[in-house]
Amino acid sequence: MSKTNRQFVLASRPSGYPKESDFNLIEAPVSNPSDGQLLIRTIFLSVDPYMRGRMNNNRGSYAPPVENGQVMTGGIVGEVVQSKNPNFKEGEIVQGNLGWQEYGISNGEELIKVNPDIAPISTALGILGMPGLTAYFGLFDICQPKAEETVLVSGAAGAVGSIVGQLAKIEGCRVVGIAGTDQKINYLLEGLGFDAAFNYKKTENYRHKLKKLVPQGTDVYFDNVGGEITDAVFPNLNLGARIAICGQISQYNLTEPQLGPRLFQYFIVKRIRMQGFLVFDFINRYQEGLQRMTKWLHSDKLKYHETIVEGFENTPTAFINMLKGGNIGKQLVKVSDL
Amino acid sequence: MSKTNRQFVLASRPSGYPKESDFNLIEAPVSNPSDGQLLIRTIFLSVDPYMRGRMNNNRGSYAPPVENGQVMTGGIVGEVVQSKNPNFKEGEIVQGNLGWQEYGISNGEELIKVNPDIAPISTALGILGMPGLTAYFGLFDICQPKAEETVLVSGAAGAVGSIVGQLAKIEGCRVVGIAGTDQKINYLLEGLGFDAAFNYKKTENYRHKLKKLVPQGTDVYFDNVGGEITDAVFPNLNLGARIAICGQISQYNLTEPQLGPRLFQYFIVKRIRMQGFLVFDFINRYQEGLQRMTKWLHSDKLKYHETIVEGFENTPTAFINMLKGGNIGKQLVKVSDL
Repeated sequence: MSKTNRQFVLASRPSGYPKESDFNLIEAPVSNPSDGQLLIRTIFLSVDPYMRGRMNNNRGSYAPPVENGQVMTGGIVGEVVQSKNPNFKEGEIVQGNLGWQEYGISNGEELIKVNPDIAPISTALGILGMPGLTAYFGLFDICQPKAEETVLVSGAAGAVGSIVGQLAKIEGCRVVGIAGTDQKINYLLEGLGFDAAFNYKKTENYRHKLKKLVPQGTDVYFDNVGGEITDAVFPNLNLGARIAICGQISQYNLTEPQLGPRLFQYFIVKRIRMQGFLVFDFINRYQEGLQRMTKWLHSDKLKYHETIVEGFENTPTAFINMLKGGNIGKQLVKVSDL
Repeated sequence: MSKTNRQFVLASRPSGYPKESDFNLIEAPVSNPSDGQLLIRTIFLSVDPYMRGRMNNNRGSYAPPVENGQVMTGGIVGEVVQSKNPNFKEGEIVQGNLGWQEYGISNGEELIKVNPDIAPISTALGILGMPGLTAYFGLFDICQPKAEETVLVSGAAGAVGSIVGQLAKIEGCRVVGIAGTDQKINYLLEGLGFDAAFNYKKTENYRHKLKKLVPQGTDVYFDNVGGEITDAVFPNLNLGARIAICGQISQYNLTEPQLGPRLFQYFIVKRIRMQGFLVFDFINRYQEGLQRMTKWLHSDKLKYHETIVEGFENTPTAFINMLKGGNIGKQLVKVSDL
């Protein structure tokens, strides 16, 4: 096979926000699969906040860092173009963690087959994939919302937050979102049926805003961002509030660690329970989550939005754009046609 | 009745540590109980960290503040000296929240009868009272330790911490304590059988100390102090660690709120669950707690220590001493003889 595979490898560990020059676009011949392996052509590539952590030299984290010169890690949806593995046929669509490249080799072990008849295949990276399952288990298992409670979501227009809010509506909760553009706020209110939302970039005092917008107080806080927004949520929490720490994107691109107010006294006074989680903690229950999410998607109780950048060469741009909040819903790169 | 009742009333709201002049010692005639009431003579008076919070003008807390001129709030053990309530007889010993005074009137509703045959009556303010139950429910219900896990306790030689560590030993855990004098450390190691302990006041880098002393990492952190000690615990936490926020005594006497490192990213990486609580949350299960604690006390699996100041007039001194860490175990004031 004489085709060329383009790959993005880590060029340098960023300080602060990543720059395009932190990635190198390299070319290599497409590999041939050995016995038991298959070759996959990337159709959609996912860029996600967690990837920023993998760019740091942080060996204490839950996954090892990407090394300089290594292909950037990332989930893709693609087509099996050559198979020497009896479990996969050419032409099948699969989802897997094959990294930032146009073609990937897999032994099939961690691949998930994607059925294009159920939903557009891109959803395997969004609402029917890792972000959707993150929202599902984070909200229902970590936060345990009850009908009529108030659920507050930060990063509410992102891939996870936009699903969390909709799931909370399904559960009968009042849902409030925080996001960073008027377009996002409009999407939450008009597109997804959030009960209230505000643009933090146009808000001087988050704490006052929350007091006005959420006078009944917050019972569940699903946090994707951390930092000053989260600081402002604590005085608004009700007795027995539950917090899921899903992401802290406001902290990922700081050049110096940020100090903040000490919040632990709130935990006593308000009897708060807070828990961090990763979707992988629920791997044995993915089928449950996907079945329910698919049902809600088909009955139009769940909607999704994708922000799609065309062209593999634009992957770093899409990634940086997402880290800066440029996306509504799931940020994807379209690498090739179905 | 012509006896005199001495009382401590709040004279001024303190900034920083309370001073003796923040309390006024006043005298009033001992009241006569009306129908349904009883008169109680204070024998032991408890001084506790939570009282510092009641001295602030903080109306958002779980209990209203003490007003200037009001008798300071506080638990006592005393003898019924006059009863116009059919449920209580003269000579009975009771525990109740009658405040900083030598005699108190009660309608009996929130009084608990104390059986002097079970244990010394002072224990109704300590190991068989609010601090003991705080340790019991905070450790077993909030932290859910498993045998062979490592339990780390801050404020480990205090009324609550010293019991938490012993309960964790009963559960088969490895127990590490943090306290502020060599005498306390010796008490934890020699007196209570803690596996390890260190004096934070003689430790330059808490984080390095924990790394050395707790190389296996911490599974359960029972926090009574907060601040820099708690900051240093986070890097030492294991996957799936549980934290009970019981107290934050390092923060109660600050004149300005303290900033600290943002710790919420640890919650994701380590999947930490943290919960604040008050013993009152478990009021329906006090009997369960007291029965088990009493059994362990009688079988010598639980020990306790009391730091007793003699004389009602020394109550503010005892309180301030306790806030500064001068006590080992439960800090009490002996007001009169049994």
